[in-house]
Amino acid sequence: MQTRIEVGILGATGMVGQHFVKFLQGHPWFDLKWLGASDRSAGKKYKDAMTWHLGVAPETVAGLTVDDCKPGNAPRLLFSAMDAGVATEIERAFAQAGHVVVSNSRNHRMEQDVPLLVPEINADHLKLIPGQQRTRGWKGQIVTNPNCSTVVLTMGLAPMKQFGITRLITTTMQAISGAGYPGVPSMDIVGNVIPFIGNEEEKMQEETQKILGEFRGDRIEPLAARVSAHCNRVAVVDGHTVTVSVEFSSKPSIADLRHAIDTFRALPQERALPSAPPRPVIYMEEANRPQPRKDAERERGMAAFIGRLRPCPALDYKFVALGHNTIRGAAGAAVLNAELMHSEGMLD
Amino acid sequence: MQTRIEVGILGATGMVGQHFVKFLQGHPWFDLKWLGASDRSAGKKYKDAMTWHLGVAPETVAGLTVDDCKPGNAPRLLFSAMDAGVATEIERAFAQAGHVVVSNSRNHRMEQDVPLLVPEINADHLKLIPGQQRTRGWKGQIVTNPNCSTVVLTMGLAPMKQFGITRLITTTMQAISGAGYPGVPSMDIVGNVIPFIGNEEEKMQEETQKILGEFRGDRIEPLAARVSAHCNRVAVVDGHTVTVSVEFSSKPSIADLRHAIDTFRALPQERALPSAPPRPVIYMEEANRPQPRKDAERERGMAAFIGRLRPCPALDYKFVALGHNTIRGAAGAAVLNAELMHSEGMLD
Amino acid sequence: MQTRIEVGILGATGMVGQHFVKFLQGHPWFDLKWLGASDRSAGKKYKDAMTWHLGVAPETVAGLTVDDCKPGNAPRLLFSAMDAGVATEIERAFAQAGHVVVSNSRNHRMEQDVPLLVPEINADHLKLIPGQQRTRGWKGQIVTNPNCSTVVLTMGLAPMKQFGITRLITTTMQAISGAGYPGVPSMDIVGNVIPFIGNEEEKMQEETQKILGEFRGDRIEPLAARVSAHCNRVAVVDGHTVTVSVEFSSKPSIADLRHAIDTFRALPQERALPSAPPRPVIYMEEANRPQPRKDAERERGMAAFIGRLRPCPALDYKFVALGHNTIRGAAGAAVLNAELMHSEGMLD
Amino acid sequence: MQTRIEVGILGATGMVGQHFVKFLQGHPWFDLKWLGASDRSAGKKYKDAMTWHLGVAPETVAGLTVDDCKPGNAPRLLFSAMDAGVATEIERAFAQAGHVVVSNSRNHRMEQDVPLLVPEINADHLKLIPGQQRTRGWKGQIVTNPNCSTVVLTMGLAPMKQFGITRLITTTMQAISGAGYPGVPSMDIVGNVIPFIGNEEEKMQEETQKILGEFRGDRIEPLAARVSAHCNRVAVVDGHTVTVSVEFSSKPSIADLRHAIDTFRALPQERALPSAPPRPVIYMEEANRPQPRKDAERERGMAAFIGRLRPCPALDYKFVALGHNTIRGAAGAAVLNAELMHSEGMLD
Repeated sequence: MQTRIEVGILGATGMVGQHFVKFLQGHPWFDLKWLGASDRSAGKKYKDAMTWHLGVAPETVAGLTVDDCKPGNAPRLLFSAMDAGVATEIERAFAQAGHVVVSNSRNHRMEQDVPLLVPEINADHLKLIPGQQRTRGWKGQIVTNPNCSTVVLTMGLAPMKQFGITRLITTTMQAISGAGYPGVPSMDIVGNVIPFIGNEEEKMQEETQKILGEFRGDRIEPLAARVSAHCNRVAVVDGHTVTVSVEFSSKPSIADLRHAIDTFRALPQERALPSAPPRPVIYMEEANRPQPRKDAERERGMAAFIGRLRPCPALDYKFVALGHNTIRGAAGAAVLNAELMHSEGMLD
Repeated sequence: MQTRIEVGILGATGMVGQHFVKFLQGHPWFDLKWLGASDRSAGKKYKDAMTWHLGVAPETVAGLTVDDCKPGNAPRLLFSAMDAGVATEIERAFAQAGHVVVSNSRNHRMEQDVPLLVPEINADHLKLIPGQQRTRGWKGQIVTNPNCSTVVLTMGLAPMKQFGITRLITTTMQAISGAGYPGVPSMDIVGNVIPFIGNEEEKMQEETQKILGEFRGDRIEPLAARVSAHCNRVAVVDGHTVTVSVEFSSKPSIADLRHAIDTFRALPQERALPSAPPRPVIYMEEANRPQPRKDAERERGMAAFIGRLRPCPALDYKFVALGHNTIRGAAGAAVLNAELMHSEGMLD
Repeated sequence: MQTRIEVGILGATGMVGQHFVKFLQGHPWFDLKWLGASDRSAGKKYKDAMTWHLGVAPETVAGLTVDDCKPGNAPRLLFSAMDAGVATEIERAFAQAGHVVVSNSRNHRMEQDVPLLVPEINADHLKLIPGQQRTRGWKGQIVTNPNCSTVVLTMGLAPMKQFGITRLITTTMQAISGAGYPGVPSMDIVGNVIPFIGNEEEKMQEETQKILGEFRGDRIEPLAARVSAHCNRVAVVDGHTVTVSVEFSSKPSIADLRHAIDTFRALPQERALPSAPPRPVIYMEEANRPQPRKDAERERGMAAFIGRLRPCPALDYKFVALGHNTIRGAAGAAVLNAELMHSEGMLD
Repeated sequence: MQTRIEVGILGATGMVGQHFVKFLQGHPWFDLKWLGASDRSAGKKYKDAMTWHLGVAPETVAGLTVDDCKPGNAPRLLFSAMDAGVATEIERAFAQAGHVVVSNSRNHRMEQDVPLLVPEINADHLKLIPGQQRTRGWKGQIVTNPNCSTVVLTMGLAPMKQFGITRLITTTMQAISGAGYPGVPSMDIVGNVIPFIGNEEEKMQEETQKILGEFRGDRIEPLAARVSAHCNRVAVVDGHTVTVSVEFSSKPSIADLRHAIDTFRALPQERALPSAPPRPVIYMEEANRPQPRKDAERERGMAAFIGRLRPCPALDYKFVALGHNTIRGAAGAAVLNAELMHSEGMLD
């Protein structure tokens, strides 16, 4: 076995940070050796610096001393789980200092020279990096993954992109884990639906256009599709469910779409990246699937599940998609991004 | 006080029948005097013929003897809560025998000469009745109300109808009470979403077109709008929430729409029908409302609530709507239909 | 109609304060005219000083200006919904200044000269007041009601007290509304049970002994019963359910207990206090009742419901009890206390 | 690797049968080769004979043809997931015909010559078998495991048995999966508690006494402890939580109990049976644990979790226990029983 690459986490004590810690356990390439957090936590053992929310806390990192989030002792490859309130400056400081920052934070996603990466869809957007480094004078770099609901939507659309998406309307039913901890008060969600998640619709709309867009040398030309999102919170623990109505320029048949879905494989599958699901998009034939509690954790939470593909009287087709929001929609997404970058030789 | 009109319920022992019993308690015009059910229940006291699911069973009807569902002893005005499996023949037999059957069952809704009534929207569809009686040789008649999710959608659209609806896409998040009892197994819905309700999407699509359609002498010309529904079940007890994206022919402004919503009143309000909410469609300004657990029971469950009206990047506008599925979506809808008919002199 | 008594609320902007506001709407004796809160809220209109969590905010108080919690402008009778962190000093200051403080806060409950009142059980504990005023040099007074889970337990035990309770074990399944807002994070309770509520077991144990205790001139002799509580949080919105196993010194029969329950009435019923339920303890015959979602709101949330009374193989008898935690267990309890005091002439 | 033992399942198509199928996947000793069900299913492929409720159906058995539940083609070792309505005769017929029936059904549990086995507690109860075979004239045998809630309670008590349990009161908060499918209607449990489960309390009380009882040659002398159960259903998917107050004859200290819990190991651990958890009873130090959604699946669902051990004012000590009801409380329990029997040479 080859030497594993040392990695660290920026913002390791929060809920997203904990998901990174959990997801990286036993990773064949990446060896978690460094945990960064706020000044308040720095200097403490990891186990004393946070309340663990994800089952049994991994013993391998419990004893690591938390560092503060300043370049210096951190390994070159860092996963960022920083809060949006502080991520901009800190991530930039690390990139400036030569680190590869693979971020789950929203802050840099929509910047022109920053890849917003879904490895099965737009691996070529990594070509933005040389320009990013040149323009900003960085030795390091920042790469981002999308919002959790955007990942589910775009993964569901990935096999269909070839048919020319011109318009889509999506409604989400999002899990409470997407709001972190303490997150959604139980008084607001037990037996209830909250038809609003702050800034979520805007993120889904613009991130989707960028992810499905084309690399144009120094920037991404967003997909010129009209994208509309309705975002809702429901009393589900893990797994975002989205309904999608979509319009295509090339008017495929149902059979064309099903063939595209069933045969869809991309770079992560071809290169057998460690976190890549063998089949990234899985169609479920049952009339009432996929369902978050029953399906989101399958395939280690890294696949998207589609069901109920049928004609849409208002656009062309409609379907339902599901993905695990804290795995494929967050920590797993960033780790897969880093695996892709390693397979491209970008971490050498 | 004038003499109250004696009324009965077809299918009184089921869940929908119980909602009728509950809703009719203390009704100023209608006096519940007759309960019809299957042979199995006939001859028993009502309280012995069913398990009551709705809080405290009304004492006024507990001692009534259940009759079988054959014309004979029933009053002229009957509310039907029959199961779809048997409603067609029984409702027709009563209409033939001279009864006014105000039905919540789906069986006759889409028949050409049967009104599918939402009093705030299409009171004029009652003009189908003379033709219905003539063609079928009935002394009585059948009038229907829509599916529970269709009511919420169409009530939300009612103030906007004037702007020419040409296309809409809706996603529902429907309460478990809509499935009756025992209905949805808890193993399927606790912490989960079920992205499918049998035949519900078809009902929403075609019922909406008929309700918003125009009376053409002997039939209703359906609205020529493209309507697409995604129907889902969520872990909510009462209250269907729907997201709606809609396209208009006349391109109203947001202000036009808000004015239309805020000033919307219709025949039931003008005539102050007993079950009519003073404001049938209520706009909520809060960013995260309406919500089913907090809002569905307001206005005695008879109003529709709208929120989050905003431009839709894919069609023209989008919003969220909410209504109480077992009240405005079922028993209350039928009773309001009968009140409208009484105010038209059709019960004299 | 006689003149209504002006009342105020200490801590009016919090969740408990809002419950007081809601419960006092339309009260025949008490007229809510004053709202006290922290400096942060003082000077604002009530509607601008808080986010209302309980459906439609009452318009009658929306425009009242919030005062700070210092004696001066407040009416003589005050309901206290103060946070425990500040209640001690503030409640004392008001009592010192001549106010009747009817408090839902826990701070003074266990003090020797302060009545911990359940009007159906220990109305005579109000005799502590003269001593309280004498000892403390107060012109006013402080009267308290129990913790929400203690109310349910002691109301269930009230009809049985006569048989000599010597030992009891109770397990609670408590609603999330008992924790206020934001209260319990949804990630902790959706599809889950939390087998711990801070200090709740201690409160149930000692408060129960005091409530069931005897007035001894200057203090309450606690009931010498061994009381043990297991407190749990469950995913219920309103209504605390408790299981109880109990041992009696006089060994009643089941028939004795049922007779005692069914005929139980007390001072609030005899005097027909406005918030008193006609039957304070209601036995439900169904094998699977009472249930919080179906029963807690009955009788305007002011009764306790008992079911499943049966022999206990380990003590003498066991049963299940239910009550509405934010009504009978909080705001309604305090208001009933004040009504009792008024009926005693203590507010003249 | 040694040859695996062929095994079958009686009642393979129901919910419990599916749990057996799932639990036996990849079992190192037992090779699932035969599936028995009702006449209605017999002759069909397994995948066509049922609706699978547990995630992804195992492909290894999907193609097996279901047999009817009559001796003939079945392997010697059979796990029974039969409905109580039919289990008595069928299980006896197989035992008569020489099969080892390891049953999860309740029918034979309380019969005098049938072991009611929890391998960590009463492995010696297997000594009943020779007498069972002699008396009944069977070449085969029937061994049973307890009700799901009894397993959790007795596993929690196992380390404490040595201190002489004389009395205990337990309240359960049981998961919906314990009621099978369709099981509990969602209208009864969403946002609710059901304080009753038919016959469950009786089962917990008498099964606990038998499990903790002593082998007396031809029968089990039940533990002469007074056991009282309050059984409740809550909106949890998997994992039964129980509160326990217990009285001991030998008056151990808290330290004695903690030492007993922390060092508790039994035959399954000593023999390293494949399904035995390394530590059968795990004490959790956190104030608010164990919790069903967060802890039940740990240790592959085969351990019991204890927390909050503290003095009980009414008996001696109290604590909370948790276990996975469909694994340790059903399929896993039976498989561990069979593993124990195999380690005793009883399957040779």
